[in-house]
Amino acid sequence: MPTRVYLDNAATTPVRPEVVEAMLPYLTQHYGNPSSIHQEGRTARAAVERARKAVAQLIGASTGEIFFTSGGTEANNTAIKGAVHHLGVRRIITSPAEHNCVRKSVDCVQASHQVRVEMVKIDKHALPDMAHLESLLAADDTPTLVTLMHANNEIGSMLDLGAVSAVCRKYNAWLHSDTVQTVGHFPVNVKEVPVDFISGAAHKFHGPKGIGFLYINNRVRMKPLIDGGSQERNMRAGTENVAGIVGLAKALQLASEGHAEEATQIAAIRAHMKQRLQEAVPGVAFNGHPDDSLYAVLNVSFPPSEHNDMLVMSLDIAGISASGGSACSSGAETQSHVLEAIGHPADRKAVRFSFSRYTTKADIDLAVSQLAAIFAGEVPVMA
Amino acid sequence: MPTRVYLDNAATTPVRPEVVEAMLPYLTQHYGNPSSIHQEGRTARAAVERARKAVAQLIGASTGEIFFTSGGTEANNTAIKGAVHHLGVRRIITSPAEHNCVRKSVDCVQASHQVRVEMVKIDKHALPDMAHLESLLAADDTPTLVTLMHANNEIGSMLDLGAVSAVCRKYNAWLHSDTVQTVGHFPVNVKEVPVDFISGAAHKFHGPKGIGFLYINNRVRMKPLIDGGSQERNMRAGTENVAGIVGLAKALQLASEGHAEEATQIAAIRAHMKQRLQEAVPGVAFNGHPDDSLYAVLNVSFPPSEHNDMLVMSLDIAGISASGGSACSSGAETQSHVLEAIGHPADRKAVRFSFSRYTTKADIDLAVSQLAAIFAGEVPVMA
Repeated sequence: MPTRVYLDNAATTPVRPEVVEAMLPYLTQHYGNPSSIHQEGRTARAAVERARKAVAQLIGASTGEIFFTSGGTEANNTAIKGAVHHLGVRRIITSPAEHNCVRKSVDCVQASHQVRVEMVKIDKHALPDMAHLESLLAADDTPTLVTLMHANNEIGSMLDLGAVSAVCRKYNAWLHSDTVQTVGHFPVNVKEVPVDFISGAAHKFHGPKGIGFLYINNRVRMKPLIDGGSQERNMRAGTENVAGIVGLAKALQLASEGHAEEATQIAAIRAHMKQRLQEAVPGVAFNGHPDDSLYAVLNVSFPPSEHNDMLVMSLDIAGISASGGSACSSGAETQSHVLEAIGHPADRKAVRFSFSRYTTKADIDLAVSQLAAIFAGEVPVMA
Repeated sequence: MPTRVYLDNAATTPVRPEVVEAMLPYLTQHYGNPSSIHQEGRTARAAVERARKAVAQLIGASTGEIFFTSGGTEANNTAIKGAVHHLGVRRIITSPAEHNCVRKSVDCVQASHQVRVEMVKIDKHALPDMAHLESLLAADDTPTLVTLMHANNEIGSMLDLGAVSAVCRKYNAWLHSDTVQTVGHFPVNVKEVPVDFISGAAHKFHGPKGIGFLYINNRVRMKPLIDGGSQERNMRAGTENVAGIVGLAKALQLASEGHAEEATQIAAIRAHMKQRLQEAVPGVAFNGHPDDSLYAVLNVSFPPSEHNDMLVMSLDIAGISASGGSACSSGAETQSHVLEAIGHPADRKAVRFSFSRYTTKADIDLAVSQLAAIFAGEVPVMA
C-alpha cells in the first residue's frame, strides 16, 4: 500500500484509540438500555449521564442543557425547526455561507411556516456585516432567530460569536450557531458567550460518526424533532447510542485537554503549507480570513489551469486526500454555494486542505510536491 | 459478582461478538466520510452501500428502498410525519396499543396539521378488529395512512400483516408498520407482503444502539425529516454512522441465517417458563395472543399481591432483569397504555420477560425460583 496523506479532517477525523477503548465496554459487556430500571439499564444510564456532565462542563453549560443527537445535522435541524415550531419564531436571519443542513432546515420552515428569511450581507471572507445584522434586527421586532455558523466549514473564517451574541441579546433575538467545526477545536464556552443553541459532532474531533449534541439554553422551552419515549428529558426520543455518547464525551475531553498545544502545532503545519504552496505554485491564493480562521483548515485558490477540473481526483490518485468543498456536498467537483457567495472566480479552483494532530510536515511536503507535479503536467508519482 | 439473568431482550439485546468485530475496522482504520470522493471516502461509501444491499436483500426490498436512520424511533417518525407533510395524508388510522414513538408522532401531526386520527378497535390481545379497520377505510376516501405495529412490544401479540396489507391496498391507503420487534426475529419480506414503510432497530437483534433503518416503498415520493446534505439519496441528511450501519447489516444477516433454529430454541425457553410459572405461582396468567405472538416475549400477569408494586425492582435485587413495560416508558412502575388498552386489571401486575439466543433453561429456573421466593415473602437469595 502506498503511503497516503489525509488532509480532509474538516470532513471527518480518525477516531482516537483512547476513544475506541472507552467505547468498547458499551459495545460488549454493558449492553443495557438506559431506560431500563434494572442493573444493566442503570449501568448504561450512568454512562450516558456521566458523558452529559462531562460535555456540559467542557462548554460551560449545565448538565440539563446538553441533548445527545445522531450528529451535527440533526442538532441543527432540531434547533432551527424547533425555534419556528415551538418558540414562535417568524423571521430567520442567516447568511448565504451556512452549511447545507442549516440552509435546508431554513428552506424547510420557510416553505411551510410563513417564516420570513433575511440574509445578512457577508464580506469576501464569508463573515457577516455586523452593522447590517444590527440594522436588520433593529428594523423589526418580529420574533427572530439568528443562525450564523461559528466557523465556515469550507474556508475556515471564524465569526466573532461574542459580538453576534451581544447584538442578538440587545434586540431579544434567539441565537443559534452551528459550531460543528469549532467544538473540540476552540474553547467554546456558553457562560462567557451567551447563545441559545450550539451543536457538535463527535467525528469532527476524533470521536465516532453518528453521534453529536445540541446545547439548548435553559431559557428555551422546546419540543422534540423526534417524538417518542422520554429519553433526553423528553427532548429527543429513541434508545440512546450509549457507546457513541461515551465516545463523544471522551473525544471532547481529550480535545479540550490538548487544545492549546494542538492549536499551536496545527497552526504551524498550516503556515508551512501556505508558505510551501506560495513557493511551488505560481498564482496561488487563499480563501478565508487571513487572521480569524480555523487553524485546521487551509482553503487554497489555484489559478486557472487545465488541471483544475480534476484536481481533487488527481490529488487522490497521487495519494493525497483533500476536498473540493464540504464532504456533504461533494461528489461533483462543482463550485460550492460558499465560494459563490464570496465571489470566488469560477475559473480558479478552490481546494480545502484540513489538518489534525496526526498531520506532519512531511505530509505537507509530499502534498505540495504532488500538487507541483500535477500543475507541471507530470504524471503524479505514487509515494 | 453474582450471576445475573437478563430477561429484557425486547428492551435491548447484547451485541454479538461477530458484529463488534465487523464494526471495529470502521471505528479504526476506515474512518473516511462516505461523502468524500477520495479513497478514504470511497472505502466508507462502499461499506455503507454493501450494508444497504444486504439489508435490502434480507427483507426482499430493492437497494434504493433502504434508508439508514439513528434507530427505530427516528424511522417511525420519518414515515408518519413524512406521510402527512409530503404525501397529503389527512387521516391516520392507528391503534391504542402502538409504541410511544408512533403514538407521539401521530399526536404531533394531529396537533399541527389538521389530520384526523381514528382508532381501530382492538381485542384483549391488542390485535385490531379487521372488520372495523375495513369499515373505517370504506367509510371515507380521505388520503389515509394506516399505522399498526407488527408485534406489540409489551405483550408480544403479532398482527396479521398480510391481511392488513390487503385491506390497505384495496382502499388505497398508505401502510406503515412498526416492525422494530420483528425485523431480525421473523422473516419479514416486503415482496410477499406489500407495505409502504417498515422500520428496524439494530439493537433489538444483537446489533449496536443508535442505528436503524426505514424501508420506503419505491412508489412513495418523500422528503426528509432531517434536512441537509444529500446522504441517503436526499432522504436523510447527516454524516453516516458507518460502523453502526456495518454492524446493523451484520447483525441482520446473522439473525436471518439463524431464524428457524433460534425461533425453535427460544420458543422452547418461553414454553418452559410458562409451564414453570404455572406450577410455581398460583393465579398466574399471560397477556398476549396465545398462538400468534413473539416467541421471545412472555408477558406475565401476576395475581394481586403486596409484592406487586415493587416486583420488577425486587427481581432486579434478586439478580433477574425484566421489565414492567417497554423500556422507553419505564422508570415508574405504572401500568402502561397497552395494558390499559387491553383492560388488564389494575390490581394485577404485568411483567415482561423477553429472551434471546443466550437465554438458557437454567436462567428460567433461577428466575422462577426467585419469583416464587418473592411471592412467598422470603428475602430473595442472591444467586
